[in-house]
Amino acid sequence: MIVDDVHPAWLPEAAFRAIGLRRVRVDGDGPLVETVRAELVGAGATLAEPADLVLALTGSLGEEGFAITRREGVTVVRAGGQAGLLYGFFEVVRMGEAAFTGEWAQRRYAPAMRRRMLDHWDNVDVHPVMGQVERGYAGGSLFWHNGVPRDLARVRSYARLLASVGINAVAINNVNVHRTEAHLLTDRLGEVAAVAAAMRPYGIRVHLSVSFAAPVTLGGLATADPLDGKVRDWWAGTTCEVYETIPDFGGYVVKADSEGQPGPFGYGRSHVDGANMLAGALAPFGGVVHWRAFVYNHRQDWRDRSTDRARAAYETFAPLDGQFRDNVVLQVKHGPMDFQAREPVSPVIAAMPATSVAVELQVTQEYTGQQRHACYLGPMWSEVLRFPLAGEADVATLADELVGVSNVGADPFWTGHPLAQSNLYAFGRLAWDPAADPLRILDEWIDLTFGPAVDRAALHEILDDSWQVYESYTAPLGVGWMVSPGHHYGPDVDGYEYSPWGTYHFADRDGIGVDRTRATGTGFAGQYPQPWSQVFESLDRCPDELLLFFHHVPYGHVLRSGSTVIQHIYDTHIAGAERAVAMRAAWERLAGQVAPDLDERVRERLDEQVRSAAQWRDQINTYFLRKSGVPDTEGRHIYG
Amino acid sequence: MIVDDVHPAWLPEAAFRAIGLRRVRVDGDGPLVETVRAELVGAGATLAEPADLVLALTGSLGEEGFAITRREGVTVVRAGGQAGLLYGFFEVVRMGEAAFTGEWAQRRYAPAMRRRMLDHWDNVDVHPVMGQVERGYAGGSLFWHNGVPRDLARVRSYARLLASVGINAVAINNVNVHRTEAHLLTDRLGEVAAVAAAMRPYGIRVHLSVSFAAPVTLGGLATADPLDGKVRDWWAGTTCEVYETIPDFGGYVVKADSEGQPGPFGYGRSHVDGANMLAGALAPFGGVVHWRAFVYNHRQDWRDRSTDRARAAYETFAPLDGQFRDNVVLQVKHGPMDFQAREPVSPVIAAMPATSVAVELQVTQEYTGQQRHACYLGPMWSEVLRFPLAGEADVATLADELVGVSNVGADPFWTGHPLAQSNLYAFGRLAWDPAADPLRILDEWIDLTFGPAVDRAALHEILDDSWQVYESYTAPLGVGWMVSPGHHYGPDVDGYEYSPWGTYHFADRDGIGVDRTRATGTGFAGQYPQPWSQVFESLDRCPDELLLFFHHVPYGHVLRSGSTVIQHIYDTHIAGAERAVAMRAAWERLAGQVAPDLDERVRERLDEQVRSAAQWRDQINTYFLRKSGVPDTEGRHIYG
Repeated sequence: MIVDDVHPAWLPEAAFRAIGLRRVRVDGDGPLVETVRAELVGAGATLAEPADLVLALTGSLGEEGFAITRREGVTVVRAGGQAGLLYGFFEVVRMGEAAFTGEWAQRRYAPAMRRRMLDHWDNVDVHPVMGQVERGYAGGSLFWHNGVPRDLARVRSYARLLASVGINAVAINNVNVHRTEAHLLTDRLGEVAAVAAAMRPYGIRVHLSVSFAAPVTLGGLATADPLDGKVRDWWAGTTCEVYETIPDFGGYVVKADSEGQPGPFGYGRSHVDGANMLAGALAPFGGVVHWRAFVYNHRQDWRDRSTDRARAAYETFAPLDGQFRDNVVLQVKHGPMDFQAREPVSPVIAAMPATSVAVELQVTQEYTGQQRHACYLGPMWSEVLRFPLAGEADVATLADELVGVSNVGADPFWTGHPLAQSNLYAFGRLAWDPAADPLRILDEWIDLTFGPAVDRAALHEILDDSWQVYESYTAPLGVGWMVSPGHHYGPDVDGYEYSPWGTYHFADRDGIGVDRTRATGTGFAGQYPQPWSQVFESLDRCPDELLLFFHHVPYGHVLRSGSTVIQHIYDTHIAGAERAVAMRAAWERLAGQVAPDLDERVRERLDEQVRSAAQWRDQINTYFLRKSGVPDTEGRHIYG
Repeated sequence: MIVDDVHPAWLPEAAFRAIGLRRVRVDGDGPLVETVRAELVGAGATLAEPADLVLALTGSLGEEGFAITRREGVTVVRAGGQAGLLYGFFEVVRMGEAAFTGEWAQRRYAPAMRRRMLDHWDNVDVHPVMGQVERGYAGGSLFWHNGVPRDLARVRSYARLLASVGINAVAINNVNVHRTEAHLLTDRLGEVAAVAAAMRPYGIRVHLSVSFAAPVTLGGLATADPLDGKVRDWWAGTTCEVYETIPDFGGYVVKADSEGQPGPFGYGRSHVDGANMLAGALAPFGGVVHWRAFVYNHRQDWRDRSTDRARAAYETFAPLDGQFRDNVVLQVKHGPMDFQAREPVSPVIAAMPATSVAVELQVTQEYTGQQRHACYLGPMWSEVLRFPLAGEADVATLADELVGVSNVGADPFWTGHPLAQSNLYAFGRLAWDPAADPLRILDEWIDLTFGPAVDRAALHEILDDSWQVYESYTAPLGVGWMVSPGHHYGPDVDGYEYSPWGTYHFADRDGIGVDRTRATGTGFAGQYPQPWSQVFESLDRCPDELLLFFHHVPYGHVLRSGSTVIQHIYDTHIAGAERAVAMRAAWERLAGQVAPDLDERVRERLDEQVRSAAQWRDQINTYFLRKSGVPDTEGRHIYG
């Protein structure tokens, strides 16, 4: 076990107690097998016969799968590859004493997604406004400090945490590739290699975000045109050097033609041209390019009602299906906008049957409380992954990979809010098994992190529906975007209403919402396969929680719940802020059951959540009372 | 004349043509007299007899006054002090050929204000968000670049410009004194001395913004309590060293207990304690302390309707009148809020008869278009200065000094927008003579800057009522604050509506405005002497342009103009944006009459003004159409 001066997250010493009492045999060789041996020794287990636990590199369960059985008092983990053995080891850790109790037939495990990846939006330099980690709420970068690489012990600990939940890939730098960070591809490649070396023992391959303009900015070429021979040569040569330094390098992540980043459009080329050019450079080495589908016009005119940002990714990429090389992965945000607390699933995910698709989730809580609010996102992601977008096929089936934007930084608790560790945990577990119950995953996390003696009910009371609570006191009914511009924390109902970002609610004195129907609106609903296209199109059938995403309705519109839109706004905001108070009270019950430093941190965050939720409640309710003139039917006080 | 690589502003060579043709005699000695001699030589004048122009240090017109006569073909300037002679010289420059034409009796000139001062909000360091010059729109600082002092030739040119309009004092650094800049008082004092040396030949004394916490941050003391003996000693000793280095140092400018700056409140002391302590340190050397009255709660809760930021300065300072030392100058912003395009005059100006008062104007266009919009502020300032606040006494009479926040930076045109030079010019001229006609001043500026052949009508068409035009397409009827938070450029109607800054409009579906009456509102109107207290209190008598500053009214409220509030909003915003277009067209008529680089700069700014004015029009009109539901009576298109 790696000793560190940070919180052990879900791998405290106590989590290894059951294994530590056992005699263990490990059959097999290789670097990851050595990692397993070192873990066992670190946990206090005896490598001896007769064994209580056997971990054996054998059989044909694929590189990452494994099976566990228990017969005649011996627990046996079999894996076809080293990574599978490592994942099997951590499964035994998770099981605790149960792994050594009773007898049972073989249980087989294999990841649903071939790649389970975290994207770090870390920079080497500290941006004056964005900080070092873009949308990071957990201190500085894990990888760099003061412009140079950090001590790698922390990175190794991080890799271990990730491996324990099945993550097998990490992109270590921001998709917005700034000047300094561009050099990680070339003259600062050694820093990437060092991180890769620290993560390799845990089966994690390192990827790098690169700038499409690199041939110009780094290579001194006159163009970055993907069809230009010199450009292709530059990428081929540069990529070759990357693999000479990092033979198991994962590949490139690219944000192109998006929010000001350079891309093929600048040269009159398509995203196929751009992505395939990079894929061609990576293919000889088995690398992949993650090409983000987050392409839209961020200089929209709010006066132009014909444009709809929600439509953009589908319009750009759906016509290109089938044209990408095999080692291109189109990385699609789970919703059509940008990680709001509530969005419909992106129709792009169903539109690319002949393309590898990675669904991108945001583990970092940019729009869900910024790790100051407790907001367990497992249930949201589970809803997304299980959504039957194309007939029988749910999102998890349609997707080849799951990518999460990391919520981790140099913070001693890894994630700022200690309870946000649950999101990192759940991301990995759901990437491995999207059908898993997110509350069961939460329970697992509680058990490992806090031990069996903790008041689990209090933690469940805080976290189980914390996402819905957050949703309830923020932007109502799927409308989104009622946040302060720029930093995105706290309410500002009109903050994005007249902006160029394509993010509008169109609230007037009569009603609110974005008409995205085909009949009278932007037509976005038409991008969905049936039945969803019809469901979202229909005012009667559209789910309440997405109503304002698809429809503009009067404040008096009666929801499927029976409430009116305006009364729903008042009710949910008042109840949501009350729930924040109740969450704080539930935490009080844990006094003495958790470490004092963690207790203090969580209390400080819950105080802020209570304050912020009241601010949300009051701004939202006042805004809509002022606008609609409709009083609360319960006669509760709303500021005028 | 000082040659520089920047625009000559209103002192091009051509402005000295009339003097350059003359034989001149200068009677007197001293450094400023030498400056006059050097100016004359630089202009090409001959120091010879018989003279066409005599400048004589004689008589008893005070240190700064002068008189001009012309008899028997000789123009004679007499001044009691060197500064007066310098000002007399520049008066002759302004007069041009007229100074040498005809015969006329003595004309006497003396400044209305004893101190005519510009405050620079310059920093040594570049702030990541605010830039180097806080609220600066003309490039970096004139005084520092890359953390070290700039070449002082530019500073000397600047001093000359200021002297030519009668400015006699400059505070060279930001009133928000950050860490680096605090050291200008002590170990970086040499930099201040260098600037003082560059400005001294033009009769300008240098002042310094200091941090009230300096005894702690610079002196290593445990407190900055103004009644603590060690603190007083520290300030006395430090000030003594300042005067040893800069014998004619002007004094300190202090922003205390304001927007997070430290002050006496932190030690349970009053502003009298704080200001008098500093005044005591300065008094032996003839220095003054400018103590800013900009004190208010910037962490207000929008839900608390009982607090009113407008009331704050009066409540803090009016009870202290008579308690300040003679060399304390209370520096009061002209309005009760913060340099909005329209505010009533601050009642504090009438509340301090036993205190020296400086009225502070904002030459830098923070809230009036940021030197991207042409906005000549002379008429606004003239209105302020001539406002009969206390019986017969207008603001100019009540004030002892006029202070302007500088609009100048390292920009080649000094002010970003070349036409914003007119504001710097008008500030000096109005500080000298507040009764002067601002359009006459503008004419003077046009004549000096562009020469007699320019299309003056076009320039007047652009600038004469440009302030009212700006007002017309931005925040209506005195309500203010409908700007983007932070940078303050461009519209955001609700941007400050739920903020802690005390800046609200309270618009709902029925009406808008802040009730500041005594009868039903915050009572701010009661801070005014009669008749203004009654005038502002009265819905019928309150001037239209201040209606929403003092009253909350329905959208259908009929203005004194006969229009309704809502129709006034639509009309003025549509007309204002049209005027911006007309201003651009007027500039077209100047093609070929101005230098190409200036022409290009002004065109670029006018394009932006046209774009921005349309954005203001549309956001404001849409916001109020959505909220009020009242259509435009003219049926013009307003975005829904």
